[in-house]
Amino acid sequence: MLRVAQAQINPTVGDLKGNTKKIIAYIEKAKGNKADIVVFPELVLTGYPPEDLLHKDHFVKDNIKALKTIAAKSKGIFAIVGFVDKDSKGIYNAAAVIDNGKIGKVYHKQKLPNYGVFDEQRYFCEGKSGSGMFTLNKVKCAVNICEDIWHDKGPFKEQAKKGAAIIFNLSSSPYDYTKLKQRERLLAKRSKQTKAYIFYTNLIGGQDELVFDGGSLVAAPNGKIISSADRFKEELLINDVHKGPIKAAKAYGRNITVVKKAKPQTQIASIYNALVLGTKDYIGKNGFSKVVIGLSGGIDSALVAAVAVDAIGRDNVIGVSMPSKYSSKGTQTDAKRLAKNLGIEFKEIPIRSLVGAFDRALKPYFKGLKANVAEENIQARIRGNLLMALSNKFGWLVLTTGNKSEMAVGYCTLYGDMCGGFAVIKDVPKTKVYALCEYRNAQGKTVIPVSIIKRAPSAELRSNQKDQDSLPDYGLLDELLSGYVEKHQSFAKMAGKGRKNAAIKAINLVDLSEYKRRQAPPGIKITPRAFGRDWRLPITNKYKEF
Amino acid sequence: MLRVAQAQINPTVGDLKGNTKKIIAYIEKAKGNKADIVVFPELVLTGYPPEDLLHKDHFVKDNIKALKTIAAKSKGIFAIVGFVDKDSKGIYNAAAVIDNGKIGKVYHKQKLPNYGVFDEQRYFCEGKSGSGMFTLNKVKCAVNICEDIWHDKGPFKEQAKKGAAIIFNLSSSPYDYTKLKQRERLLAKRSKQTKAYIFYTNLIGGQDELVFDGGSLVAAPNGKIISSADRFKEELLINDVHKGPIKAAKAYGRNITVVKKAKPQTQIASIYNALVLGTKDYIGKNGFSKVVIGLSGGIDSALVAAVAVDAIGRDNVIGVSMPSKYSSKGTQTDAKRLAKNLGIEFKEIPIRSLVGAFDRALKPYFKGLKANVAEENIQARIRGNLLMALSNKFGWLVLTTGNKSEMAVGYCTLYGDMCGGFAVIKDVPKTKVYALCEYRNAQGKTVIPVSIIKRAPSAELRSNQKDQDSLPDYGLLDELLSGYVEKHQSFAKMAGKGRKNAAIKAINLVDLSEYKRRQAPPGIKITPRAFGRDWRLPITNKYKEF
Repeated sequence: MLRVAQAQINPTVGDLKGNTKKIIAYIEKAKGNKADIVVFPELVLTGYPPEDLLHKDHFVKDNIKALKTIAAKSKGIFAIVGFVDKDSKGIYNAAAVIDNGKIGKVYHKQKLPNYGVFDEQRYFCEGKSGSGMFTLNKVKCAVNICEDIWHDKGPFKEQAKKGAAIIFNLSSSPYDYTKLKQRERLLAKRSKQTKAYIFYTNLIGGQDELVFDGGSLVAAPNGKIISSADRFKEELLINDVHKGPIKAAKAYGRNITVVKKAKPQTQIASIYNALVLGTKDYIGKNGFSKVVIGLSGGIDSALVAAVAVDAIGRDNVIGVSMPSKYSSKGTQTDAKRLAKNLGIEFKEIPIRSLVGAFDRALKPYFKGLKANVAEENIQARIRGNLLMALSNKFGWLVLTTGNKSEMAVGYCTLYGDMCGGFAVIKDVPKTKVYALCEYRNAQGKTVIPVSIIKRAPSAELRSNQKDQDSLPDYGLLDELLSGYVEKHQSFAKMAGKGRKNAAIKAINLVDLSEYKRRQAPPGIKITPRAFGRDWRLPITNKYKEF
Repeated sequence: MLRVAQAQINPTVGDLKGNTKKIIAYIEKAKGNKADIVVFPELVLTGYPPEDLLHKDHFVKDNIKALKTIAAKSKGIFAIVGFVDKDSKGIYNAAAVIDNGKIGKVYHKQKLPNYGVFDEQRYFCEGKSGSGMFTLNKVKCAVNICEDIWHDKGPFKEQAKKGAAIIFNLSSSPYDYTKLKQRERLLAKRSKQTKAYIFYTNLIGGQDELVFDGGSLVAAPNGKIISSADRFKEELLINDVHKGPIKAAKAYGRNITVVKKAKPQTQIASIYNALVLGTKDYIGKNGFSKVVIGLSGGIDSALVAAVAVDAIGRDNVIGVSMPSKYSSKGTQTDAKRLAKNLGIEFKEIPIRSLVGAFDRALKPYFKGLKANVAEENIQARIRGNLLMALSNKFGWLVLTTGNKSEMAVGYCTLYGDMCGGFAVIKDVPKTKVYALCEYRNAQGKTVIPVSIIKRAPSAELRSNQKDQDSLPDYGLLDELLSGYVEKHQSFAKMAGKGRKNAAIKAINLVDLSEYKRRQAPPGIKITPRAFGRDWRLPITNKYKEF
């Protein structure tokens, strides 16, 4: 028998000391569970992605030192640890196979992703083929890293040919709501192709705009996922591999007794959990303990407040209502009720007199001119200034509340409602905001007042304003945006089904708002293409298809 | 004889129609000058860098259509045009050799830079070796693209072996103040290595954070730069290649009659010119005509105002002074004098009553607490709100005035003085701000009052505040920042010469300010590493060397 422990842990980028400590703790835990081997995720030692920290020689040296510390604490067990290796040619995204306290074989990742949020060719050299094989209790094993198993020509092929009965894949695979299915399908396919057991070990945790969802698993040679860890949680998944009847395992005469399989989550549940974990980790890893949120009485700030409470607890969330003369009774009451339902501190700072002071200051220049977006934005920026003042005074992090639909078309005020350190629902389309609120309310008592969910969305920056006065219906808009933003669809395709005018409007607004997005706070990626590292459009851009 | 025209032009990213028109106009101009061949810069048709526009299939198709339009207008001349090519494998950074109206050979760039500001491996496939040769009036020629000639193992080697007597290199090489010397040294070396004439044709113009400086040139086989175009200007550089005595040219029995060599610029002059061009193009290419600048009476805003006037003319620049109770008489007078010297419109909007209104609004929460950075930032954010109100009302672009030293250590207010569409001197260290002001004053009459240059820098956000109360002396700070930011130096190196405390302070401040920089407006890169695409540090980052 062989006992395999998969350490699905949450390191912090750059925190070599903290990560080392955590890795050693999990090695101890694996030993305590009498595991023969413990496997960690990709680049677990540095955190993922370390980005330009990799350009610092001393950082790479410190990470190698840390690996030696870990090795010294790994007597009596095999451990596979992701780290950054270095030779005369450059640095590598690497995995060290530590054998009873000694660093043995070191594997270098061969397929370096350089698309979407990934920039690995910016930093790493490619590993040489023919590597990654080692023997564990007489079983032929192989190790490879993330993309190595996704790529059709990845090293898993060669490793299988060399007789690997078990393949350990170390991953740091960022969450989006389409990823899990792809991943399960892929690993099932790969295990069939290789006729090996694949132990897929994934990171968990939030890192700036990315959330890693864990969901580490074991795929059997027959293409079945036979064991899996929970998502969005640290876990040591332990499975025994031993002799038995599974046919495909004949190659080495062993199979697996299922120890644990995680309960599946709905897509909406996984998005909600990703938002909670991403928010929790951004706050915690950046040294904050409390957050402040502007509560408008609208649905976006309601969802952000609920996520924040679930992330760091109601005692650490402060809601601030900042009504103006355009704020309706309905939204003001709802903001209060929301705060009460969530059990968070609630402050009210009316902005009427501040708006008046700005009107007076600008009167010499604005006299005789029609009120327009200038006056609307002044209000939003007064609110931003107030939230930032509270942040600066009390050390609270401001969470912004804009959703992806708004961010896409620029229906938000730069330096106004866009003020803040972290944009929780930046990548959540408006239609999914509704679904997430319904989901949250269904988890127990109704925390988000139904009147908030039912009310037609409004920025309340002028009389009787409704979002839908300026924008296509959100259902249609989100479909168009998914095409334009997430799939780079052509105008011809988007304009079908009589949608020409709406498509032109959406495309023009997205193009025009690039300058705003460039100054937006980071937020959690949940879709296949977010407005983050995976969206690199120029601001200066005169391309038009129509 | 062979007449070569190098079209150093300024396209706009994405503007396929406009760029096509401009390219055709230069082809006409070259024909009018009886040139045998006209060469354009890298990706001139799409503009550089097109970034994620390259992910749009229809964009690539439209660019190929545009190339055909250009070819049809190129009868009676050879033209080499940079564009995006496509085949079943993917897309290529390519150069089309158009021969008398027909698209002949198409060369694919082989060495794709993926460091610094470059992400070419994100988009392009590598070209095959052995390509790029063509014959022009019986002379063996070769074409390659930018990095192809920088890389030690670039295709220029093979092309020389095949007998290329002339190598055309198409470039889009972004400016920094160290680049020209490197470029001249490199091309001299390459021409000696290849024993060929190298015609290096570079783009000019501003594109978001990048400025392309032109400086197209001809390097002779003896390693001499024998002809060069001006920098930061569109130009059609024409040179005749004909029989003559230069020994190294024996291979094909021709040499060059020098037609034109540009006058050298000092480093400071080149920085100033880069700022002017970058500002002019950001404003113009994004459809603005006027800009508004907050004038504090300090040196940073003075320099930005001078650059803006030189970029778009004094009639298009509005200066706004927004004094508070902490503004000194000296700075207020200086702001007015600066505006007068530059001949720009000047507005004054005092903020005392606005500050009072915020104090009153926040009193219930701030009562009994000591004034701190919260109160300082409120003032900066009131000013930001006023500038943005003017921007929203009149369609003026706000230029921000922060320098690189401030941006590095976070000595600036997010949503306050950081408000604006374009950050002109974002990559200019404070010590170079002084040098640039001296340079500008030396060009004619003194426009930047000497009292502005002489006064100790202050944010004037509290009584008797001086930058140097919170920061190391700017001379020392800029040295430390150059080490930490531009060279990724280690703490050990930075802390030498008794600088340990200052180094710790600088490093901690730079690390802590990453979240601010992530929300900063784009600004012009002038150093080898700016806070733009060439700076990708995580916000969440616990790495410390000390």
